[in-house]
Amino acid sequence: MQILKTISQLREFRSKCSSSVGFVPTMGALHAGHAELIKSSVTQNDHTIVSIFVNPTQFLAGEDLNRYPRTPEADIKICELCQVDAVFMPEVDEIYSEDEPKVIAPKELSSVLEGYSRPGHFDGVCTILTKFFNLIKPTNAYFGKKDTQQLLIVENMVKSLFMDINIIGVDIVRSSDGLALSSRNSYLNDDELAQALKLSRSLMKASNLIKANQLNSIEIKKSMSSILEPLKVDYIEIVDKNLKQIQNIELGNSIILVAAYVGNTRLIDNLWV
Amino acid sequence: MQILKTISQLREFRSKCSSSVGFVPTMGALHAGHAELIKSSVTQNDHTIVSIFVNPTQFLAGEDLNRYPRTPEADIKICELCQVDAVFMPEVDEIYSEDEPKVIAPKELSSVLEGYSRPGHFDGVCTILTKFFNLIKPTNAYFGKKDTQQLLIVENMVKSLFMDINIIGVDIVRSSDGLALSSRNSYLNDDELAQALKLSRSLMKASNLIKANQLNSIEIKKSMSSILEPLKVDYIEIVDKNLKQIQNIELGNSIILVAAYVGNTRLIDNLWV
Repeated sequence: MQILKTISQLREFRSKCSSSVGFVPTMGALHAGHAELIKSSVTQNDHTIVSIFVNPTQFLAGEDLNRYPRTPEADIKICELCQVDAVFMPEVDEIYSEDEPKVIAPKELSSVLEGYSRPGHFDGVCTILTKFFNLIKPTNAYFGKKDTQQLLIVENMVKSLFMDINIIGVDIVRSSDGLALSSRNSYLNDDELAQALKLSRSLMKASNLIKANQLNSIEIKKSMSSILEPLKVDYIEIVDKNLKQIQNIELGNSIILVAAYVGNTRLIDNLWV
Repeated sequence: MQILKTISQLREFRSKCSSSVGFVPTMGALHAGHAELIKSSVTQNDHTIVSIFVNPTQFLAGEDLNRYPRTPEADIKICELCQVDAVFMPEVDEIYSEDEPKVIAPKELSSVLEGYSRPGHFDGVCTILTKFFNLIKPTNAYFGKKDTQQLLIVENMVKSLFMDINIIGVDIVRSSDGLALSSRNSYLNDDELAQALKLSRSLMKASNLIKANQLNSIEIKKSMSSILEPLKVDYIEIVDKNLKQIQNIELGNSIILVAAYVGNTRLIDNLWV
């Protein structure tokens, strides 16, 4: 496995890939959720490149850019175990310069949910992915459904800007007690980890209600809300795949999303139904 | 020569190009300036694609989008004569959808000169070019120095976003009396055409002053200003290749730019010294 630190190293590696290239963009602090993305890529492509880059432009002022977990040695080991061909881990200066273009996320898709709470976040995501897509020229790129809004925005971007890349969404990986895996879980102490289970439990409750034919969004959200107590909830939303709020669940075309604070840590989770 | 109207026609044509592809993006109303770009591309590439697309997103509200000259039949003839392989002339709906990302031009480069007078113009330019570059995947793309600021912004975009394309700037083509060729010259009546010569004459004056060792920007601008009278001048600027104002001409690294109204028509011209 090669460790690529510079653009020129990446370009040289890429020029030698003759057939399909899978790309898994990450911010490092890899966990079993990332491993699932990587395994999908390794299975489905002749070459797999993983990027590890804590992208500053997708953090807002006051967010956790500086304390975001950084575990490069463990990350490299995981990539090796997963049979990744190359890890791209550039410095910020290698990627960004002073006066340069930005890619602004689609307004409607990005102004709700995460985008409402984190304005500008998805612009940073679109900008870094445009750079990485242009450099890596992947056949397939892998994104977790944990960040559902990101997945939908990236699909929109690739289609609208005519990028010649397949975007592949991969199911959320959960711990045995249901918690959606996230690099930010490392911020949680034991008490908080127990509290964090309320997110997935609220989604399980929604799932059970839907199985019992309760399709009304208001009723589902009410039940979820009571399970999430006493957490500070940022949002509970039930939307279609254009992220438009819906009054009733349409099976196969609905997503239930939740964002809440556990202590100072903001967690998200969701369920496609 | 093929006329391509849809994305799928373009993709099919492109998939059959085995070697170098030259791309000349235009808004149609082709003149000898465009022909020069096209000839450069045809000479330097195995295949040449010309786009003819009056890009709505680079016109501000109140600008001349609707009356911008459209001469598709003549344009096709010129492309044929120049031995172009394919003309891409899509409808607006084929290119833009409702909620989609935008590429925002580099702030410093795009907030002066044309960008100051036409805020948002270069965002539209960057967005359409990103789309076309992703679709056409050119080896080389050709831009006139007539739109110097556009050329510099596109060079910045390609470098910053790691697009794998050579950007080639082509010298301004002028009529025998010095007027820089422009599709907007078609708006001018005979009187206005005579008035329009003041732009190139002011640049000739600057050139002569520089040859006589007058390198001071203020003095040069003063002389240009008096030649441009009584036109309504938008700007006369002397800048380096980062579009930063300079106090004295540095030979080989300076650009003199002028924008002025002739009647209701806004014209631009420039000189690299």
